[in-house]
Formats: sequence, C-alpha cells, structure tokens
Amino acid sequence: MTAVKEISGGIVAAKGFKTSGIHCGLRANRAKLDLGIILAESVCSAAGTFTLNRVKAAPVYLCMEHLENGKAQAIICNSGNANACAPEGSENALRMAQAVAKATGVAVEDVLVCSTGVIGQRLNVEAVEKGVPEAVALLADTEEANDNMCKAILTTDTVKKEIAVSLTVGGKEVKIGGICKGSGMIHPNMGTMLGFVTTDCAISSEMISEALRECVRVTFNRVSVDGDTSTNDTCLVLASGKAGNREITEKNKDYEDFKNGLYAVLLHLAKAIARDGEGATKLVTCIVSGASTEDKAETLAKSVIGSSLTKAAMFGADANWGRVLCAMGYSGENFDPKNVDISFSSAAGRIKVCENGAGLPFDEELAKKILTENEVVIEALLREGSCEATAWGCDLTYDYVRINGDYRS
Amino acid sequence: MTAVKEISGGIVAAKGFKTSGIHCGLRANRAKLDLGIILAESVCSAAGTFTLNRVKAAPVYLCMEHLENGKAQAIICNSGNANACAPEGSENALRMAQAVAKATGVAVEDVLVCSTGVIGQRLNVEAVEKGVPEAVALLADTEEANDNMCKAILTTDTVKKEIAVSLTVGGKEVKIGGICKGSGMIHPNMGTMLGFVTTDCAISSEMISEALRECVRVTFNRVSVDGDTSTNDTCLVLASGKAGNREITEKNKDYEDFKNGLYAVLLHLAKAIARDGEGATKLVTCIVSGASTEDKAETLAKSVIGSSLTKAAMFGADANWGRVLCAMGYSGENFDPKNVDISFSSAAGRIKVCENGAGLPFDEELAKKILTENEVVIEALLREGSCEATAWGCDLTYDYVRINGDYRS
Repeated sequence: MTAVKEISGGIVAAKGFKTSGIHCGLRANRAKLDLGIILAESVCSAAGTFTLNRVKAAPVYLCMEHLENGKAQAIICNSGNANACAPEGSENALRMAQAVAKATGVAVEDVLVCSTGVIGQRLNVEAVEKGVPEAVALLADTEEANDNMCKAILTTDTVKKEIAVSLTVGGKEVKIGGICKGSGMIHPNMGTMLGFVTTDCAISSEMISEALRECVRVTFNRVSVDGDTSTNDTCLVLASGKAGNREITEKNKDYEDFKNGLYAVLLHLAKAIARDGEGATKLVTCIVSGASTEDKAETLAKSVIGSSLTKAAMFGADANWGRVLCAMGYSGENFDPKNVDISFSSAAGRIKVCENGAGLPFDEELAKKILTENEVVIEALLREGSCEATAWGCDLTYDYVRINGDYRS
Repeated sequence: MTAVKEISGGIVAAKGFKTSGIHCGLRANRAKLDLGIILAESVCSAAGTFTLNRVKAAPVYLCMEHLENGKAQAIICNSGNANACAPEGSENALRMAQAVAKATGVAVEDVLVCSTGVIGQRLNVEAVEKGVPEAVALLADTEEANDNMCKAILTTDTVKKEIAVSLTVGGKEVKIGGICKGSGMIHPNMGTMLGFVTTDCAISSEMISEALRECVRVTFNRVSVDGDTSTNDTCLVLASGKAGNREITEKNKDYEDFKNGLYAVLLHLAKAIARDGEGATKLVTCIVSGASTEDKAETLAKSVIGSSLTKAAMFGADANWGRVLCAMGYSGENFDPKNVDISFSSAAGRIKVCENGAGLPFDEELAKKILTENEVVIEALLREGSCEATAWGCDLTYDYVRINGDYRS
C-alpha cells in the first residue's frame, strides 16, 4: 500500500470540484446555513449507498434513479427538512434537481439530491429554488466554500466533519476528500446520515461503486449513536478523473491503493460522527478479536456499542464490564462466555477487568481515570479464532435526552 | 370466559403458599430487604421461562435443571448481586438452594433460585446462608409477608409490583397471584427480570408450562425499557392444586379460563415494569393494527417502543410521529409506508397526526396535552390485514442516564 497523507481542502482538495453553502430560508435562524451544492467540472463516475430503512425519504429514491447509469455531476443538499414522509416529496426532490440543472447547465439526471432535518413536514421548495442561483454563483474551490458546504448540511451536529487525503495511484497523485453530517438517528444499517466524497482519481463507475460498498461496510456501517436507522442515510462519491492516472477498471493494485485512501476518508468521517453523537462526551470504540468469523466479531462489537446500559456506564466512567458481556450475550451470536476477556483502555492506560468470563479484581481508581478520557476503547477477546471487527459509538448522556426531548421546537 | 376479579394478597392470595423477606446483609443499606423466600405447603406443578441471553447467570441454569421434572416447592431470591459471570457462581447458587432445603425440609431439587443486581462480583453466599433460617422462621401468608418479599427482590425499581386475581375454573374459585421486579436491562427476549407467580389451581406440569409460555409471549416479551436483555430474566410459576378444581391436564375450557387469569396477572406485571422503567415518567403503549400477521405487528410495535428517539420525544411530549414511522421502517418488516396512519392518545384525548404515510396538520397544543399524560398510546394502523399486537415501554429521561451512569456505586 502506498502512504495515505492527510491534507487540507475537504471536498475541493481533489481536482475538478467546486462547492458552496448558503442560507436560503429553510431554517429560522439566519446565521445557520441550510443549502449547499457540489459541482464537478464534467460528468463523474459516481456511486452511492443508501438507507435500508423501509421508509425512505423522497431524495433517496431520486438518487438511486439518477445513479442507475453510474454517472453524476452535481449534488444539492439542504438541512432543516428531511423531505421524508412529506407531502409532495418526490416532486420537491425533483424540483431541487431541476433548479440546479437550470442554473448550471448540468443534465437533471446527473444531479443528486439529499435532505436532512425533521421528518413529515412539507419542504419549502420555493426557498430552495430561490437559493440555488445564489449558491451556484458562489461555487468555488476555496477552503471557505468547503467550510460553508460542511456547515450547510449540519443539523444537531456540534462540529463540521471533513477530511482530505493524498496518495499515489498508478504513479499519479490522487486526492480524496469527504464531508459528512450525522449526530442523531445514527445506526449501522447502511451508514451515515449524509456523506459526500469527491476524488480526482480516474476510476470506472463499477469500480467506484464496489470500492464504496466495501469501505462503507467497515466504516459507516459500524457506527451507532442511538440505534435509530434514518430514513435519509446516503453516502455519495463523485470521481472526476482529473488526476491523470490510468483509469481503474478492475480490482488491481491501483484499485487496492485507491480503496485504501477511500477507507481512510470514510473511517475518519465515521469516527467523527460517533464522536459528535447527540449529547456525547466521548468516542467509544469496541474491538472484538479472536472471533471465528468477522461477521460474528462485527455483530458482537455493534451490540456492545449499541447497549444503552453500556453507553450510560461510559458516560459515568463506570467500569461496569458486566454490561459489555451482557450485550455480547444478547447479540444473537453464539459464543462461550467462559472464553471472553474484557479490557478498557485510553490515553490514561489499560486495565483488564474480566478474564475467562469472570471478574478480575482491579484498581477502581485507575479504571475511573481510563474511562474519564474522551476516547475510550473496550476490547473483548474471544479466543475462538483469529477474526476481529471494530465498531464506534458514544456515551449516552443527559444532553441526548435534552436534545431529543424536543427536537422539533 | 369467566370473570377475572382483582383481589389483594399478592403471592399468598392462593391457598398453600407462605413467603417472607429480610435484610441478610448483601446490601449496605440495612433498611433495604435483600433476601426473600416463597414456600409451598407441598410439591407444586411448576414451570419457568428464562432469558435467551447467551450469557446466563448461574441461578438460571440451576432453575432450568430443577424444573426438568416440572415440579418445585420453594423459591429463594436475593437482590444486590446477580450471581452472573461471578466466581463460584454455580456453587453459590446451589448453596442457596441447599440452605433452603436444610431449613425447610424441602428436597434441594425442588428449590428454585433467582438473583438480581450487579454482574460479575462474587455473591456473599455466607450472608445468604446466615439469613435463610431467619427468613424461614418469618414465613407467613400475611399481607406483610407478601409486602416484604415484594421489596426484597427490587433493585432500581421505585415501586413494588404485585397483583392477585380470583376466577372460577371448573366450578371452583381459583386464585393467581404474582410479583415481579424489573426496571433496567429490560427488553423483550423472554420477559421480565424476575417474576414469581403462585396459584392454587390444580394443573399439570405440562399445562402450566404451556400456559406460562403462551402468556409470557404476549406480555413480558412485549415490554422494553432499554433494549438490554438481562442475563437473569426468569419467570416462575408454582401451582399448589389446593383450589379443589379437577386437575387441568389438557387444553379444555378450564385451561382457557385459567390461562385468561394468568394472562391478566402477567399483563399487569409487565405493564408495571414498563411504567417503572428506570427514570421513566410515563407508560408508553404502542398498538399496531391492520397488519397481515401478528408477528409483523409485534415486530413493528416493539421497534417503536425500543426507539431511543421516540422514547426521548415521549419524554418531551413532542408529537414527533416521523420517529414512529422511521422506527417501523427499520424494524426489518416489509410494509408500505403509504398505508400507515399514526395517532397519539391518552386520557386527554386522541389526535391523528399522519395519514397514508404523510403528515396531517394538527393542533400542536392538544398534542402536547395528550402526550403530557403519564399513560400515552401510540397507534399505527397498517391497512393490510386484520392482525394486531401491543407492546409496552416508557420514555427515555435524564434519570435513566443518571441511574445508569454510575449504577455500581
């Protein structure tokens, strides 16, 4: 694998992309940006992964349709309204695409549409239509433009989430940049709320789709904030091909190199979502190793990350490992509890609290210190094989309840 | 069906049972009872249902073994320690049964054992052994004794949970009484934390087991507080046969009458657990109707009850029905969102907020008033068939986080 280097620039780091973010009036607070556009210079190889929720927002269906040919050139996204279960949902999603097509000359079927916010209310599509020309006029490949786009897609997020990396593919420098939003209604069953990735790598639609699928499976799909799989989950990637590498059309070394870079970008974004989970005070990582299959390790790790009791214990910095083992036990996977060791670790140290399924005497003060850090790792070793999986989540706090007790107001 | 009348007396309402509850020293707080015994005059037909968690507490295995012949005479239960994943777990569970056998003359294999409390710490079995003779000396069929037993099994519960009913079976008055505990680590995958039911009905081991299984499926197994299925979940029933009815040995009218009474007892207890969910301020009931199968209705209702976002909205009295439809969507069941109507109701009224999968304009003030009540019903109508199911849960509150942020302390 070639080295993957972090660089600045977010989604405009890769050649061939411009972006912008504005306030178009969907949100009452005029200081809050609520509409963003990403535009590629020319038609890109494109791919997407979408929520598996039976109830899908209108823009999700539109994206699926527009991605059937593996090509796209623009993405429009609003916050403040999810356009899910909303009157005239499909029409309004299409009107968003049409507005971008009209203002940019891009074909309607090459425009992808995403929405995020409250479910069930009619989207003020007139405000979007009025905002699109302004947003298009502001399109740029500057840090400021990237920053505005990042902010325009946020809802209850407290920080913007972005990354860009540089790596060598087929002897050429390739860049991959990504942004995402997601804080609540996050559960591993597709991936994020919304993630947008741009790259200048030359890669076919088939291969970009395959790489996205493979990477989402081990990144976004292993994140949980609250167990609620959204109606709008979407991760989109556009590849402009401007890097000048020989186009990737099969699973060769170049494909593996590119996938490695894409993985780094999605991993960063996935962890950023978990860390910024609604009300969260810490990033909680669960690594299950020594399992007989990766699927089993994944199910167990996700079960731990999803356990309300474990999450509340992490908030309280309480080394209550019984809840970890309990959550593994109800995951549906078969394993022998007598083979399980559990440890907690963080920047403050590492402590083993359970061996062979039974409690070990341990230093409570050290455990408290370890769990008080803002990044905590729960390790469970199964001793039945050599497979492992990692899942990411956060703690359950008073603020999660506060934020969600009256989200619509 | 014959009428089922609520009576007093809890688990000593039925003929042939005594009980007691004491403080034996497992809990630091001397005012908190932590050990209880139920003793039948003679060997009973008995049955139990247990947690499906792969990680089971030692007493669960002991109960399963002692119930193999469908007979039992005594139950001992402690709070303060779950005896799960604990050193010498099996030995200590057996020592609890032996202590009761020694003090009462009951055969060891007719003693059932339950524990509840923290996971992973060695049970102070010596304190239990010291307490058993005292508890046996106090055995009585009085309200006070029943009250003490109720209290002895509680952990984070804020109220004791009990009921007794009287009904006619085969021309004779039959009584059924039940108590339970459960507040956190409650999720429908067997049933309650701990539930104990006594009856004087004459019924065979096979029939009592069948009736218990049928009733638990539609009561305890439809309750969720936090999605965490405990390691200790156990529901036990002892039938003394003292009511003088002709023994029920097949699924005849007497069986149906008895099952009707048992259902009333378990339903009351299941709802009591949901209402007293850790930190809960209200009982939330979800009724899914118009489904093509009962299984589908059940899965959908449980998914709504289990949704953190829906639970937080209920806490905030926020009519955020999009979260209800979203939770139905990720349940794994197939349905057409365009067929779904959603309503909220309570003592304050009823309001329809979603029709054919899309939002209706509604009176926000009335909705707030409805959802501010301490018993709230969420109804979802599917219009695809005639099956329905009900699930019970509670809201997600600051206090759930507080209670579980540092439970061990």
